[in-house]
Amino acid sequence: MRMKSQEVREKILHLPKATNPVLVCGLPGSGYVGKLAADHLVSAYKLKKIAEYICESFPPVVNVKADGTTEQMKGELYFGQVARGKDIMVFTADAQPTSSDGEYELSDAVVKMAKKCGVKKVYTLAAYITGSFSASPKVYGSATSKAMLDSISGMGVTLMKDGGISGMNGLLIGMAALRGLEGACLLGETSGFVVDAGASKSVLDVLSKAVESPIDTSKLREKAEETQKVISQLQAMSEQSQEMTPQPKREDRPGYIG
Amino acid sequence: MRMKSQEVREKILHLPKATNPVLVCGLPGSGYVGKLAADHLVSAYKLKKIAEYICESFPPVVNVKADGTTEQMKGELYFGQVARGKDIMVFTADAQPTSSDGEYELSDAVVKMAKKCGVKKVYTLAAYITGSFSASPKVYGSATSKAMLDSISGMGVTLMKDGGISGMNGLLIGMAALRGLEGACLLGETSGFVVDAGASKSVLDVLSKAVESPIDTSKLREKAEETQKVISQLQAMSEQSQEMTPQPKREDRPGYIG
Amino acid sequence: MRMKSQEVREKILHLPKATNPVLVCGLPGSGYVGKLAADHLVSAYKLKKIAEYICESFPPVVNVKADGTTEQMKGELYFGQVARGKDIMVFTADAQPTSSDGEYELSDAVVKMAKKCGVKKVYTLAAYITGSFSASPKVYGSATSKAMLDSISGMGVTLMKDGGISGMNGLLIGMAALRGLEGACLLGETSGFVVDAGASKSVLDVLSKAVESPIDTSKLREKAEETQKVISQLQAMSEQSQEMTPQPKREDRPGYIG
Amino acid sequence: MRMKSQEVREKILHLPKATNPVLVCGLPGSGYVGKLAADHLVSAYKLKKIAEYICESFPPVVNVKADGTTEQMKGELYFGQVARGKDIMVFTADAQPTSSDGEYELSDAVVKMAKKCGVKKVYTLAAYITGSFSASPKVYGSATSKAMLDSISGMGVTLMKDGGISGMNGLLIGMAALRGLEGACLLGETSGFVVDAGASKSVLDVLSKAVESPIDTSKLREKAEETQKVISQLQAMSEQSQEMTPQPKREDRPGYIG
Repeated sequence: MRMKSQEVREKILHLPKATNPVLVCGLPGSGYVGKLAADHLVSAYKLKKIAEYICESFPPVVNVKADGTTEQMKGELYFGQVARGKDIMVFTADAQPTSSDGEYELSDAVVKMAKKCGVKKVYTLAAYITGSFSASPKVYGSATSKAMLDSISGMGVTLMKDGGISGMNGLLIGMAALRGLEGACLLGETSGFVVDAGASKSVLDVLSKAVESPIDTSKLREKAEETQKVISQLQAMSEQSQEMTPQPKREDRPGYIG
Repeated sequence: MRMKSQEVREKILHLPKATNPVLVCGLPGSGYVGKLAADHLVSAYKLKKIAEYICESFPPVVNVKADGTTEQMKGELYFGQVARGKDIMVFTADAQPTSSDGEYELSDAVVKMAKKCGVKKVYTLAAYITGSFSASPKVYGSATSKAMLDSISGMGVTLMKDGGISGMNGLLIGMAALRGLEGACLLGETSGFVVDAGASKSVLDVLSKAVESPIDTSKLREKAEETQKVISQLQAMSEQSQEMTPQPKREDRPGYIG
Repeated sequence: MRMKSQEVREKILHLPKATNPVLVCGLPGSGYVGKLAADHLVSAYKLKKIAEYICESFPPVVNVKADGTTEQMKGELYFGQVARGKDIMVFTADAQPTSSDGEYELSDAVVKMAKKCGVKKVYTLAAYITGSFSASPKVYGSATSKAMLDSISGMGVTLMKDGGISGMNGLLIGMAALRGLEGACLLGETSGFVVDAGASKSVLDVLSKAVESPIDTSKLREKAEETQKVISQLQAMSEQSQEMTPQPKREDRPGYIG
Repeated sequence: MRMKSQEVREKILHLPKATNPVLVCGLPGSGYVGKLAADHLVSAYKLKKIAEYICESFPPVVNVKADGTTEQMKGELYFGQVARGKDIMVFTADAQPTSSDGEYELSDAVVKMAKKCGVKKVYTLAAYITGSFSASPKVYGSATSKAMLDSISGMGVTLMKDGGISGMNGLLIGMAALRGLEGACLLGETSGFVVDAGASKSVLDVLSKAVESPIDTSKLREKAEETQKVISQLQAMSEQSQEMTPQPKREDRPGYIG
């Protein structure tokens, strides 16, 4: 018996009846700007998970949570309301795929699913790295259409004029455009050195205009501190185990960072 | 004529009638803790091979055995009894796949086959690297469910609270959970420097509680010494041939370590 | 639900009725010789885009254009006339695929589509790197058949006698031959250090003989300067952002060069 | 329209009626021992090409031959007689695949085709690197079965007792065994530093016993000198062009060595 390769597995838990929802994506990256913002939306609005994604180029690792149980690396799509009549979908993941193929296929799978649920606009939340700290981080942006560009420009976003957006934050709006949706990437100014709640707040402030509804970001800083603690622990353990390990590539080290 | 890529090929030799079997997996890794334990179970209980797995991201090499014959890299699934009414399946392999895709697909193929045979619980045996030697190695653990966690905790396992388990020892229980099974990873404390029969004994002692049946580990040390000898030989030959070889990537060196 | 991997996606916009068209391919490479020449043909003859190609081993990035909008990395196939009764198809792309698989599959997809449109001859435009500047760059060449070789030899091309042509400029004519078409690669002598309008002009001068029609190259130098400016900017930003970035592999850096 | 990935494409030119043929494989590797021997068999016995193989992990390059025409990287399967009633198939290639997947799939495709033609025994010809020159190179060997091992032992082959055989020379006999055929690898002792006609002669002398028919190796040294010349040229050009090239990864360098 032969088994064919598949890059992405999608497990649909629940197909929501959504009214003109927007899709917001925040994945792990520099400063955890997008991931932090996405996680915040999920918990602040008690969003419901509607689909899970396993990508075969996620790092081959399971994480151990504080309660001792393991958790498979996965992408998660959530759905709910930020206000009456304001539906939102949020996509986040434990990691970005480690291969180009994986990034393209996971992006496309998420966009396809979102389109099926009626999504017409996709926002990705990301980091704009400057190397220095800023008290009031600006939000930079780019979009797949002139109309979308005008729209984010009206929300106080500084438009990018060149360069590129790498990884899924870029591909997700690229694939959205290929499937006939509109997309914009909002990049919060950050040093890139720490988990940056300030940058996440800035992109969420812009997003609140996009969804025409205030977004409560009061618990964001708390969440950022928590995240920073977990990351610091993982890094410390990773460095420790790498020192100890004679075969760094094939091991069962407790301190792997996904 | 075109041929499609497949990552894993499964060759079923025999589909056993099993009664509530558990699946135990031990793959090559630091200290050969899991591999040594799995090989021991196969020989101690004269388990019968029921399936073979070729993964295209196994190292592209055939090993030469002491009798001069070659052996293709493969994964092997065994079945048998550790005691009357106590069925067990054991999965082991000559190597772990070298790609993320390969690890995901091989893990899933094994879990799927085990589920078909009635398996509900999966144990992976692995190494917990500390860098120092221990007279009585502890066993650390993590599990996919609270119930499974309670169960291994009751067997004297120290529960992990953070970090991650990389490679197939982690993915196998992750994929098990995705397919509705329960899984636990038992990690024997080891320095990581040598083939560690002591760590293997520790995880087997825990496993004997999981299968509610004593496991005779008297010949384990002997097997460890044998394994250490083979590994040392391969390493010596590998270093030797690497010195001699003008084209290290494309060669037929006799000292390759899979 | 499972999704199978695909390397290349082809989006056909328009299937032209062509009369004996030749296919000309110019992809990014040293000196941008081929890419510059292909872009020039598209704008000089107002060619119409007939198909787009997304390859999953294109760099996972979207570029931001001067007007602020993003653009997905893609391959583009154009069609039109260089003179009455002289049909031409031009293939170019924002990048070459980063994997061997991607290069083979994208090459084959383009050749297959061209064959469907009636193409019998394929020319790829590339760079022949010498490391020194030349006032009147020679054009080197190789071809898939003796007849094609005689043909380009008659156009003043210096025939190569050994070596190899790597990347899609080579594979495109290799795959063309496998599908029963003829192919030639025209390589313009270039230092390899700058965007080289002179080398592009040289290959276009040869190509004008192949399509039996003069090709106006007067605006080529202008386009080269423009291209050089964009590349220099991207490089400057890339160096800058790499200095600033704590996690170089997973980031949203604005200065990525595709 | 979507296109699925395939690793290997097989083009059957002619399906021979063979009587108990053996398959002999010689691929590029250290000292070109196997490749030289295989090429010799093809020309000495005027074997007829019966199939071609394109593998997407062959190096993405076309070679330029002395007559100026290009040649796609490919695997080639030949068929003919070494003596009356002694049928032989020979497989060789311009390169070995660069990925593990490619090596597995190409090996399996060739074995499958050989089996269809009635092959029961597969011999791979390879190099056993010692780092020093030998006037009368020994032939080392390993085989997939005890019977095959006894057979090559009776031909003066020194049996290997450990280590591994990497690349397609190993996988081809591994895959042969998986498909129910027998295989042996014959490794000619070589320094590994030069194209080694002496080592090729040694393995062909053993092979002549396997096919029960003398093999004329008088023109082998000549062919080796020719091959050495081509390789030296390619290396010289490659070093030269690498010095000259500002972007070593994406270029059209004339001196690529496949």
